Parts: sequence; C-alpha cells; structure tokens
Amino acid sequence: MVRWTKIGVIAGSGALPVRIAAACRARGHAFHVIRLAGLADASLDGLPGDDCAIGEVGKILRLLKAGGCDAVVFAGHVKRPDFRSLKVDWRGAALLPKLIAAGAKGDGPILNVLVETVEAEGMLVIGAEEVTNDLAALAGALGAIAPTDENRTDIKKAAAVIAALGGFDIGQGAVVANGLVLAVEAAEGTDAMLERCATLNAPARREARAGVLVKRPKPGQELRIDLPVIGPETVRQVVAAGLAGIAVEAGVALIIDRDEVVALADKAGIFVYGFEAAEMRAQ
Amino acid sequence: MVRWTKIGVIAGSGALPVRIAAACRARGHAFHVIRLAGLADASLDGLPGDDCAIGEVGKILRLLKAGGCDAVVFAGHVKRPDFRSLKVDWRGAALLPKLIAAGAKGDGPILNVLVETVEAEGMLVIGAEEVTNDLAALAGALGAIAPTDENRTDIKKAAAVIAALGGFDIGQGAVVANGLVLAVEAAEGTDAMLERCATLNAPARREARAGVLVKRPKPGQELRIDLPVIGPETVRQVVAAGLAGIAVEAGVALIIDRDEVVALADKAGIFVYGFEAAEMRAQ
Repeated sequence: MVRWTKIGVIAGSGALPVRIAAACRARGHAFHVIRLAGLADASLDGLPGDDCAIGEVGKILRLLKAGGCDAVVFAGHVKRPDFRSLKVDWRGAALLPKLIAAGAKGDGPILNVLVETVEAEGMLVIGAEEVTNDLAALAGALGAIAPTDENRTDIKKAAAVIAALGGFDIGQGAVVANGLVLAVEAAEGTDAMLERCATLNAPARREARAGVLVKRPKPGQELRIDLPVIGPETVRQVVAAGLAGIAVEAGVALIIDRDEVVALADKAGIFVYGFEAAEMRAQ
Repeated sequence: MVRWTKIGVIAGSGALPVRIAAACRARGHAFHVIRLAGLADASLDGLPGDDCAIGEVGKILRLLKAGGCDAVVFAGHVKRPDFRSLKVDWRGAALLPKLIAAGAKGDGPILNVLVETVEAEGMLVIGAEEVTNDLAALAGALGAIAPTDENRTDIKKAAAVIAALGGFDIGQGAVVANGLVLAVEAAEGTDAMLERCATLNAPARREARAGVLVKRPKPGQELRIDLPVIGPETVRQVVAAGLAGIAVEAGVALIIDRDEVVALADKAGIFVYGFEAAEMRAQ
C-alpha cells in the first residue's frame, strides 16, 4: 500500500513511532527516523535516522530531504513546548512568531503550521494508517464483550461532549459513567484524566464496572496527525478506573498492539468498541 | 431584605453555610441549621439546629417544619452519594428511584428533585444571596488589578467553554492560558482542577503569571442552589497554579469572605473580575 520512495518518521514519545518503524521494516519500505531528543523511545536508536532537538526545524527538514524522504509521518506525543525558552536553529527561529500566533488559537493551528512547513519542502505529510492498515480502529466490538444499552448511552454522551468542545481545540477524550460526565480531557492528556477517574468512579469499582472512556478526533481537526490513540496501557488504566469499556471512532482512531489490547480487555471483562461517526449523530 | 419567619439552612461542607448562619445571626433573623453528617463544618455545632444523615430526607423535612422554617437554603458542597449503598429513612427510600433516574441526566436534575421535595412541603427554596447580599459577585475588577486584553481573551474563551458544555450538566469551571484550554472541570471539582493546572501551567510560573480561572453557572441551571463559589482558598490555589486571575459571572457567582479574597489577590498580584453575561456574548 505504500507508494513512496522513503518515509520520514518524526518520532515523539510513546509506542506509535516504534510500531510505524516496525511496519516499514516488515514491509521492506525505506524509512528515516527523526528521533526527537528526550521524547523518542530508546528502541528507535539503532534504526536509520538522526537525533534532533524539537526546535531544530531547519536541521530536521534538511536531514529528511537529504535522506531522500518524499513522505513524512508525525507520530507520538509532543507536549507543547514553552516557546519563550525553546532552543531553535535559524529556521526554527523564523517559524517561531507563526507558531506562537497559532498557539494562541490551540494545538490544532500549531500542527497545521508544521504540516505546511514540511509540505513547502516538497514532502507529503501522511497519516500513520497510510503506512500500516493494522492501526486504524475497526467498527464494532473488537473483543469478546459488547457495550450494553447503558454503556451505549454513556458512549453517546461522551462523544457529544467531545464534539461540543470542537471549536475550542481541547482534548480528544471524555469519560461518562451512568450519565454523569466524570472527566473531560484538556491539556493534561488521557493518562492523567483516567488517573483521576479511578477516584471519581469509586462507587462503580465496589460493585460492577460502570462508565466508558471515549476517544475521537476533535471536529474539524487535521486527520493526518495527532489522531486519538489507545493501546495496552490505556486498557490497564481503564480497568483500574473501574470503567466498563473503551469506545473510539472507527477508521480514524488508532489502536496500538491490537491483539494485546483485545486480550487484556477480554481478560478484564471490558469492551473495546469502534463506533461510526454517523452512529453518534443518530437518535 | 429577609421576609421569612425562619430560614432553614441545609449545610454541606465548606464555608458557605457558616457565612449564611453568621449573616442570619448578624441581622437578627431566626434560622435552623441542618448539619449534614460528615460534611457540615464543626463551627456550626453550637447553633440552633439538628444533625442529620444525608439520606434522612423524612427527618430533615420534619425538623425544618417543626422548627417553623418557611424558607430553605441549600448551602455548601455535597458530593453525589452512591445511591446503591446510601442509608435512607422511609421518605428517602421513597425518593430514591426518582433521584437515581434524575442522576442519569446529571447533577442538575437531582437538585431539581430536592427543590421540588422541599417546596411540596410548603417551604420556599431561596438562594444564598437572598439571605445576605454580601455574597454575590459585583461587576468589574474587585481589587487593585484589572485583567489585561490578553486575560480578557482567555476569560471569553473559558466562559464559552462552560457555556458550550451546558447541555451536558458538567462543571462550572474552566482554565484557559494564552488561548490554550488547560483544564475543564467535571466531577472532580474546582480544587482538583486547579491542582493539576499547577503542573500544566509550569511555563507561566517560571516567567510571568498567565491564564485565568473562570467560574459561572451552567446555562439553564437552577439559580437558587449550587451556584459557583470562590473564596480565599480559591485565590491561594489560583496563585499556586501560576494563573493571572479569576473571573466569575457577576450577580450569580458567590464570593465568600470578599475582603480577604481581595486582600490576598492584591498581595499576590492577581485580578478578581466580575463579568456580565452579555459581555461574554459580545464580540
């Protein structure tokens, strides 16, 4: 499915860049990893690529082009840096005013500037699921357990909360339990949100699991980068929080290590469900 | 301004019930405090009233009526109990199915059931600001410092986030810093939200204060109970989180210990601002 000469992988933290590099290797596709300092997983160290600081925009673009990349994937987490203390090269400095102005509107506009910058150099920015179709979430129940009607009501409410916040460029996650919105994700990220749900959802943990984590893209967001991701660690946290399951938007959300995700979910008795966007709009 | 024979104060946790009782006493108004077990402040112990468990609905109504109350104020925090393990008297048990059904829609519907229940007994539910007009937030800057244009942009965004979430009966608070939504309050409450902002807002703390806490009622909420409240502790937490100030909706949000709030804010160099709802809608 890959129709590019070489894929540049700009690697932030987490497992996604590792899985993308592995997918390239398994398929025999040439790739070049830009390991962002302090973020990229150590297991990427031996692979073809370079180490760069996040502010070295000129160096990153030069290395990707010199390496022969015609497509670029942004993968993994990158926390918004403090632009005032960020160390930048000449190209990074030239980009800073634009990034700071974009940043006042949210994370989305920052990502748009980065996509434009890469594409202005003649490379195409592609989504992770274009490299490997093992990642995109499928529709329906992924494991042995399906959401109940009560779970589906919670899923719809959480999906609607994320949709309602779309204009504000906030998070991609929300947790609803028995109709009550337990948590809305903003700058803290999914992990921290789930951590506090473990306390907030205490009654559920004593008796039966209740509530659902929903992750979906913000409405109108750039769908090639910053897609919602879940993985085995998400399942572990959802189990610890006493929730009944996880629902993600099928086709756009990414699932890392799907087999392990399903095995863990089945073992703990929680569901992992891919919903269609249209399903959330329907009554 | 009080035109009732005796005011019943149903006291949850926090300083608000204490201030309301003190205001009644200072004005020579008769009052009767229902001290909710495990919640009401110990300083309420010596005042005219009774100790009740949260599920003793019949007992609470009987005591308020026997005490001669014709008006009732709900004051202080009460966390949503676990209805399945809640100890209730006969009247509480009769109310439970209604409360559980309401709870599936959010906290607002639960409060509506409680208001109806009290008013069905011939007592009027009144707002805290009807007992004492020292509490309602005034419009404009309350202390020496006014929000900058940048702060005002953040205030508008946070106010719009809370408004957008109105239909979901979530929280009454949000934090926005330099255009970025740092945190949205849901079931965790304002204190826990501000606590995580101390980490999320780290860049601001290193250089200059940035960002604002906004508290306002949810759109369409019952305005006699569960109003947004700030007090000296809120100021301390906002200072610790590196924020530049606090904005609340004038006329409806309550400020406990206003003089102390202003003194603390002035000393720390943060603003406390009361905005009009119309101001948030305007361009």
